[in-house]
Amino acid sequence: MEKLKQRILQAGKSLPGGILKVDSFLNHQLDPNLMMDIARAFATKLDGKPINKIVTIEASGIAPAVMLGYVMQLPVVFVKKKVPKTLDNFYIRDVHSFTKDRTYTVSISADYLTPEDHIVFIDDFLAYGNAARGIIDLCAQSGSTIEAMGFVIEKAFQGGGDELRKEGYDVISLATVERLEEGKIYLK
Amino acid sequence: MEKLKQRILQAGKSLPGGILKVDSFLNHQLDPNLMMDIARAFATKLDGKPINKIVTIEASGIAPAVMLGYVMQLPVVFVKKKVPKTLDNFYIRDVHSFTKDRTYTVSISADYLTPEDHIVFIDDFLAYGNAARGIIDLCAQSGSTIEAMGFVIEKAFQGGGDELRKEGYDVISLATVERLEEGKIYLK
Repeated sequence: MEKLKQRILQAGKSLPGGILKVDSFLNHQLDPNLMMDIARAFATKLDGKPINKIVTIEASGIAPAVMLGYVMQLPVVFVKKKVPKTLDNFYIRDVHSFTKDRTYTVSISADYLTPEDHIVFIDDFLAYGNAARGIIDLCAQSGSTIEAMGFVIEKAFQGGGDELRKEGYDVISLATVERLEEGKIYLK
Repeated sequence: MEKLKQRILQAGKSLPGGILKVDSFLNHQLDPNLMMDIARAFATKLDGKPINKIVTIEASGIAPAVMLGYVMQLPVVFVKKKVPKTLDNFYIRDVHSFTKDRTYTVSISADYLTPEDHIVFIDDFLAYGNAARGIIDLCAQSGSTIEAMGFVIEKAFQGGGDELRKEGYDVISLATVERLEEGKIYLK
């Protein structure tokens, strides 16, 4: 997606530790027009798939996911990064973030993820793929089917995307970072 | 906003402790069409105000805020519920949630909240007003101006809205809950 790539090169910052800072338009400040363009790009790539629901994870996945829900006319559920007050009726799973070096619990209500659901998982970043692993597990617990996964930015050098593709998942990335050097971003 | 009120009465659940559960369309599962209608209702009420930026707070404020950003063609910033890794260039403040009975730290980068900004604060719920107090403090620290505050649902019986209005803030609520009884929701 050309407009996204331009924005990453213009406004993104390559930081030590394989971190790409895009908080001016994607994960702190948001550009709503870019979010709509991102949603339209996902919708084009997902065309024809039997998807009935969009699943994302708080907080940075919500903006592109709700725009995609609007474009595709589908409900959106956001997985919460917290332990629910009561475990009744919730699926939970621990996820480790290498990028942030912490482990958190993700949870989703069984009311909103069911065996009838065919979902696309949407998130801002694909790095090592651990958030995606969490979603795969929640979907397995609930009996729902993952039709595709869509990421705004994939950091290919961290390998999560290749592993998921090897396992047969349909992984869509709108921009792919081949490598990051100090102060330089190399896109595919 | 009639459509929102109907949805609250149809799908909302009144729980003990003054809790209104609306997780089927607002804060776990999201209805993107309702989010767009909410954004349009806010935009109509904000018409004519010199607003250049929308500020919200993760996670449930993001969906209505990004839709409002799209409708008003303005950038959105979401305040994070975490202590930043480094305090350089961040404004922070502790906020106590009576509803959730916990205290958390909110933070925003000084890059995205400046003395030039005239903002509207958007959130899903207005209860005791403590999240709004946190935003007022962040805006004071940054020298930015609050032009209005918009809430999808105000719980009037918890008093936050009345206090903010007494202090002169322009508080917009799209649906107002007068009181909750077991299993019953009374809207204004």
